[in-house]
Amino acid sequence: MKAIVIFYSRTGTTHSMAETIASTLTGEKFDVKLTTPEDVPVERLTDYDLIVVGSPTYYGTMAAEIKKVLDESIRVHGKLEGVVGGAFASSANRAGGNETTVLSLLCALLIHGMVIKGMSGGDHYGPVAVGSFDSTCEKECIRYAQELAALARKTRVD
Amino acid sequence: MKAIVIFYSRTGTTHSMAETIASTLTGEKFDVKLTTPEDVPVERLTDYDLIVVGSPTYYGTMAAEIKKVLDESIRVHGKLEGVVGGAFASSANRAGGNETTVLSLLCALLIHGMVIKGMSGGDHYGPVAVGSFDSTCEKECIRYAQELAALARKTRVD
Amino acid sequence: MKAIVIFYSRTGTTHSMAETIASTLTGEKFDVKLTTPEDVPVERLTDYDLIVVGSPTYYGTMAAEIKKVLDESIRVHGKLEGVVGGAFASSANRAGGNETTVLSLLCALLIHGMVIKGMSGGDHYGPVAVGSFDSTCEKECIRYAQELAALARKTRVD
Amino acid sequence: MKAIVIFYSRTGTTHSMAETIASTLTGEKFDVKLTTPEDVPVERLTDYDLIVVGSPTYYGTMAAEIKKVLDESIRVHGKLEGVVGGAFASSANRAGGNETTVLSLLCALLIHGMVIKGMSGGDHYGPVAVGSFDSTCEKECIRYAQELAALARKTRVD
Repeated sequence: MKAIVIFYSRTGTTHSMAETIASTLTGEKFDVKLTTPEDVPVERLTDYDLIVVGSPTYYGTMAAEIKKVLDESIRVHGKLEGVVGGAFASSANRAGGNETTVLSLLCALLIHGMVIKGMSGGDHYGPVAVGSFDSTCEKECIRYAQELAALARKTRVD
Repeated sequence: MKAIVIFYSRTGTTHSMAETIASTLTGEKFDVKLTTPEDVPVERLTDYDLIVVGSPTYYGTMAAEIKKVLDESIRVHGKLEGVVGGAFASSANRAGGNETTVLSLLCALLIHGMVIKGMSGGDHYGPVAVGSFDSTCEKECIRYAQELAALARKTRVD
Repeated sequence: MKAIVIFYSRTGTTHSMAETIASTLTGEKFDVKLTTPEDVPVERLTDYDLIVVGSPTYYGTMAAEIKKVLDESIRVHGKLEGVVGGAFASSANRAGGNETTVLSLLCALLIHGMVIKGMSGGDHYGPVAVGSFDSTCEKECIRYAQELAALARKTRVD
Repeated sequence: MKAIVIFYSRTGTTHSMAETIASTLTGEKFDVKLTTPEDVPVERLTDYDLIVVGSPTYYGTMAAEIKKVLDESIRVHGKLEGVVGGAFASSANRAGGNETTVLSLLCALLIHGMVIKGMSGGDHYGPVAVGSFDSTCEKECIRYAQELAALARKTRVD
């Protein structure tokens, strides 16, 4: 099983979230690629069983750097049907756009025909960091990665 | 495999969508319950492998009648983790709130920890009717139901 | 100038937010009506220069009780064009649906043709309470009410 | 009164919408600048009484080119408080992400503390084109521009 974790980070918070998710997925026996926008192999996104995308919150949606990757992913449009995806975000403040950023990422995954999952406890739409990467955020990232891993195993596109 | 299709309809459009989805799921060998809000067995939602919810668009989100069912579903909160869900909506006009209504339903499913899926062609977030139930809408409902059925079979919570 | 603050609250948090907003508006020389869903004079909503709506977060959108009021507000559809509105929400957790609840309320106001405003600092879309009504939340409510009051004075529909 | 209309367009649809809005604003006696992302004078956004932003729908939100402008607008964060804004979008299909794209733009404006307005008839959140720029879309753009112009005159930040 292969997973890719795509993130953009300026202050390091989103980076820490991405690393936590990536290492959790490695622990779940996934072959994991952790990457920033400039190194995303857009044409090879079809190689992965799980695609997780994270961004800081800039004006209520993902950073332009991440958006550019998603816009370019049109080259594999239709080929990610049924693949499991996930999203995470960081913001400076609570109620600062974290949820809408996660949802903007999830909307993109849905438009690719991908499969996503919420969490009945904690950060419902996907993990968020408020201000910094703290232990609450770490736990959310670990749990989310575990749930996505389990889902990807079940729904694997053969 | 068991599915429940919950809908509210005043003009009949959402009703037609619900019937199309229900009959498609029956064709997919699901035991299907088609129901309106007053008859939803909230405590028994845990019996289903697939939960699909539809609503007309009232002020950009689902009708209060459907919201009431979702609010009451807190009684099974945490017990729908990993169950597959879907949403559909109707509106009088294009750009009249259809997408935000579908998303408001999907957000509720995600908060239950449920699994959802978009479509890479057509109505990306879930089927919508604009004005009336026409053949385009019928096709979207059939395709969506088929995709949800396939996903529910794969992810079945044992 | 007349304002109405409509809220629903079970635990008291949203009630405290509503009271703070109402008393701030009174301080801004508005004649303020503070009311719960069962007492909203839907036909008289056209009497107000400012309409503010608050709800707890239930499954990512407003409570059914508040939704019912908005659905009934269709009786004055088109007659609230240009009236200033605002929204606030409470939730148990951060990233628990607060933002999407505020946005679901704001979408309803926009569909009425109303005028809304964000805040460049703090809770961007509208005040939220996370867990309880604390001093941060109080400040956000006061500031928001002041900004809405100023806007309503400027845009008053004659 | 000064207005700026910022748009990005590949197929020309969003361009036609932008031109219609710009010419309507000129007719409303605004001094109008019509511009694409590469020529947006970010530091000078504070010069305008009205800022309107349009984008095609790429994966449910605005194009990366437009997002980049918004991300850079942080340089004037806090200085656009109370300025009137608006948004418009185009998409290939109905239910193809048009509404979520308009809302992603509106969220950005709200985070700047700007003032926005919905429409009680037609395209509620802001004008959208579905497939192409047709006469319905043209009317929506004209009406929206007129309403924004009226609002900007009323709320002018002195």
